[in-house]
Amino acid sequence: MTAGNSKRAHSKTKPRKTARPEKYERGTRSYTMSHIRGKDTSIERMVRSFLFAKGLRFRKNDKRYPGHPDVVLPKYHTLVFVNGCFWHMHEGCPKSARIPKSNVEFWTAKLLRNRERDMRQHAELEADGWNVIVVWECELGKKTRDERLERLYHEIVDERNVRRDGIHAGRSQIETDSNRLVSDGGRRDTERGRNGSMGNTENSARPQMSHRAQIANPFRAMVFGALADEMIANGTDVVKLSLGEPDFGAPPAVHDAMREQYDGRPLPYTAAMGLPELRQAISDFYRDRHHVDVDPKRIAITAGGSTALLLSAALTVNDGDEVLIADPSYPCNRELVRAFGGKVVDVPTSAANRFHLTPELCKEYWSDRTKAVMITSPSNPTGTTIAFDTLKAVCDLARERGAWRIVDETYLDLADREPDGSEVKSVLACDPDAIVCSSFSKFFGMTGWRLGWMVVPEYALEAMDDLATNFFLCAHTPTQHAALACFTPETLAVCEERRQELLERRRIVVDGLSEIGLPLEVEPNGAFYAYFNIFSTGLDAWTFCERALKEAHVALTPGRDFGEATADTHVRLSYAASREALREGLKRIGDFVAKLRG
Amino acid sequence: MTAGNSKRAHSKTKPRKTARPEKYERGTRSYTMSHIRGKDTSIERMVRSFLFAKGLRFRKNDKRYPGHPDVVLPKYHTLVFVNGCFWHMHEGCPKSARIPKSNVEFWTAKLLRNRERDMRQHAELEADGWNVIVVWECELGKKTRDERLERLYHEIVDERNVRRDGIHAGRSQIETDSNRLVSDGGRRDTERGRNGSMGNTENSARPQMSHRAQIANPFRAMVFGALADEMIANGTDVVKLSLGEPDFGAPPAVHDAMREQYDGRPLPYTAAMGLPELRQAISDFYRDRHHVDVDPKRIAITAGGSTALLLSAALTVNDGDEVLIADPSYPCNRELVRAFGGKVVDVPTSAANRFHLTPELCKEYWSDRTKAVMITSPSNPTGTTIAFDTLKAVCDLARERGAWRIVDETYLDLADREPDGSEVKSVLACDPDAIVCSSFSKFFGMTGWRLGWMVVPEYALEAMDDLATNFFLCAHTPTQHAALACFTPETLAVCEERRQELLERRRIVVDGLSEIGLPLEVEPNGAFYAYFNIFSTGLDAWTFCERALKEAHVALTPGRDFGEATADTHVRLSYAASREALREGLKRIGDFVAKLRG
Repeated sequence: MTAGNSKRAHSKTKPRKTARPEKYERGTRSYTMSHIRGKDTSIERMVRSFLFAKGLRFRKNDKRYPGHPDVVLPKYHTLVFVNGCFWHMHEGCPKSARIPKSNVEFWTAKLLRNRERDMRQHAELEADGWNVIVVWECELGKKTRDERLERLYHEIVDERNVRRDGIHAGRSQIETDSNRLVSDGGRRDTERGRNGSMGNTENSARPQMSHRAQIANPFRAMVFGALADEMIANGTDVVKLSLGEPDFGAPPAVHDAMREQYDGRPLPYTAAMGLPELRQAISDFYRDRHHVDVDPKRIAITAGGSTALLLSAALTVNDGDEVLIADPSYPCNRELVRAFGGKVVDVPTSAANRFHLTPELCKEYWSDRTKAVMITSPSNPTGTTIAFDTLKAVCDLARERGAWRIVDETYLDLADREPDGSEVKSVLACDPDAIVCSSFSKFFGMTGWRLGWMVVPEYALEAMDDLATNFFLCAHTPTQHAALACFTPETLAVCEERRQELLERRRIVVDGLSEIGLPLEVEPNGAFYAYFNIFSTGLDAWTFCERALKEAHVALTPGRDFGEATADTHVRLSYAASREALREGLKRIGDFVAKLRG
Repeated sequence: MTAGNSKRAHSKTKPRKTARPEKYERGTRSYTMSHIRGKDTSIERMVRSFLFAKGLRFRKNDKRYPGHPDVVLPKYHTLVFVNGCFWHMHEGCPKSARIPKSNVEFWTAKLLRNRERDMRQHAELEADGWNVIVVWECELGKKTRDERLERLYHEIVDERNVRRDGIHAGRSQIETDSNRLVSDGGRRDTERGRNGSMGNTENSARPQMSHRAQIANPFRAMVFGALADEMIANGTDVVKLSLGEPDFGAPPAVHDAMREQYDGRPLPYTAAMGLPELRQAISDFYRDRHHVDVDPKRIAITAGGSTALLLSAALTVNDGDEVLIADPSYPCNRELVRAFGGKVVDVPTSAANRFHLTPELCKEYWSDRTKAVMITSPSNPTGTTIAFDTLKAVCDLARERGAWRIVDETYLDLADREPDGSEVKSVLACDPDAIVCSSFSKFFGMTGWRLGWMVVPEYALEAMDDLATNFFLCAHTPTQHAALACFTPETLAVCEERRQELLERRRIVVDGLSEIGLPLEVEPNGAFYAYFNIFSTGLDAWTFCERALKEAHVALTPGRDFGEATADTHVRLSYAASREALREGLKRIGDFVAKLRG
């Protein structure tokens, strides 16, 4: 069976120990890997033959169910997964403990993801009323095989009367629609998923996806958001505190300016680096608001903050280069570094350092291959700024060591003061050659408008221009024109009002969490996030979020999205939602936690 | 001196022969390379010392001039470049012939670009009234040094009376504004450009840009377009036939739909794969117009066709993978493959195969590392479609060999019939698992709106979703909504009218070029490009375009943008311009060519 929705290669045996270090190489490694099967493996066939001989009839590898169960027995409302211990991280089994010696980061992440996916999918299937049985590879060794298969048979037939009702009625429909029951002797289609080969009727080889495509992680905040949306669509009243989208929308003047663009004019491409007037306006904004001089030619307009971060990674990262990032931090930054072959070095941080890098931490995690430090301040998910002194010290260290400083200031203009009362400053005030990424999405409330910018050191401008041309041609032309309306005193006043509103909401959240008995370890002073520790509830963060959504109808984001250090202990709440929604959401979280604590 | 506007590392000596194969590696190679200087090299210092001793005073490495001349003598209206023979490809000099044995493609491209840039910059400087002198490294060997330096002195002082007037008055201003003359003894600032280290006052190391940033090429069509814009801004009446932008703009209904979006609603992110309704509409469009069934879930909405191509490369290409591309073809495709570590295998094509890949050519250029074939049909720059039989044969071959088929159908809906009268079909009609990239920019005239789409094989959808999330979050939200208006019968009728108009224009261009004596080798049946051979004029294509712009005030695009095979012989004319503009442009080209032929 495969461990996901057509996802990744799986076999029932571990990759050879003689694996090459560091990289997939097409010549040998990937060829070998491409022949590892995800379906119709020996243990799968063994289980099927046994069940068939016992007179059971079933479908195999049914793609209509999460995880493509190896054996589907509609009559018994039972699904059987036959899992390799290595690929599915069989807990307590020695085979599962053997993470390959090379490419450790890749394998660890991959296998953890497999396990996580398994858990999620099994839970989903059970919620739909299925009896889910897992047969492990190690149980099918010669000594235990017979006993296990006999037991499996009884688990199937004896379970017949305990069918639970599916929560999602839609899924049961799949069942009744179909009566295509096949035995193990049916057609072999070796659907493999991401890592895979094969699968179409002509039996020809499927091309391999790139390594980066295989290791790309989803942004789970969006996954939980999508789940919440689905529930809302089905009529459930969910309070969504999971996504980083201000509820204000763009200021009215920007809407007006945008409408004016659509009078029939052609709206051609702009220069790849963007509209000169807009670059000038941003330069003026830096001067007036942040008291730093930035030559407009150093400002590149991008298709959202994401694109700015993408270009930063493209501009700096070579294969094997290491990039230091605070753990926890914004997940896409990590993914972009990995997409260009870089290695993300997650530096565990804590409330003690306001969840930011420090020079000491950087020194500790520095290596010969360190190519950049990446800082998001104010931080997503913690909402905390890095103290200016610390920022300067980290940048000085990195510069002295010849590394890039990539600073994501997407939330900068939403920041409150530093804890010591001083103003929050741009990194450009201490490090004019840092690469800065920013966005119109947060302070200006223009999330779906996909507009951002970068500040690039002068000597990198030409390369930047070439990369931007090749990657995007240019950012959205009319939006660039309309964005000029962001920098009028009137619009800035609107944005300032909204910032003040966010500070009020912060108060509600900080107080509310405290009352619930989940006080913040460090108070946010920027963005619109509160990152709170749920360890005391006895749940891990993923389960907390899953249950909070299903039981209390509040959408939150688990710490796992933001790294490893706080993956199981912390949860992000976004207070880019109305005061009413926040009060209601906090009430529900409070009730939920109270229930947990009995 | 550096050979460009703060561009790339330069030294006066060639890289060591012991260069590692294949790749820059940070540990050794890039460290060594980072210490190669672009300024204040020994030969530069030798020249400066000599001139200083002769009593001349000058500025050095002045960044205000193209190429940052090593010695600037305003008094004598003279600039001196002291050039390493290897880095600047000194013609006829043995040192310049020694292209490194490893990374041949990289070095060849890099050095050719250096030379091209030198030529361009020197021409620009001379046009501005400067006397430009190049001193070559090989002329400064012990035997010839004294003679060369003496001669240089006379070249400088004797040239004093022959100052030409600058074409661009603006540049002369730089001159009069400044009297900061320094000798060689001044502060050393080792500005290095792309590949470089150093440069700020604190003398700390500049981080290295990534390999991909260093090798990224500009899209020259846009460079020529920008030059044309500059001339237009200065009052010159230029006919722009250089850019691939329809002059129609988007259909009125799409403008209307867009305006409606801006009524103050929040416009949040959509799902990374795009708005479900729009994906459905595109699926319907495939069914109705192209008679192919595409599951809407296989359609991903992207931020323009560029992003679709970027994601295609990201999804498929690993380090060292080879991708077969017709030469000539759209330059960004090449660059995107290179950006992800892939090697572009340019397959030379000709009018005989309508400038497209054939199965025979693919077999000839196939290797163990071939990972994908990339086809643009109708082609940019040739406007020709690949015959459906040929397309099918190429796709079959690639599929059988386990390679991806990436087909850019950006211009598909502008296509006329095939030469044999049959309808032009989507690749999906013969290869449902091909990756298709498309765009709203051409048929729907929405260039600056940055919206495109992809069709992805089902088993790659999950990876695609993750990559799209990390790279972009989503495409422009309101544009996605407005694009729904593209698929109404009314809008499609408007687009069809425009297509007919393009066919009329094609007639003007085909006939016009024929009359000029530059008949097309193969007639375009799609897009809005004519790719014509100017070999008979006695000029290379770059010079042809440069002189056509300066002398005849017509902006065209040189073949070099599209590969090597036709780099010097062919020129692209875009007929996405009004009939009047086309007639006037053709008249100017005709006069220009007549003048050339005397």
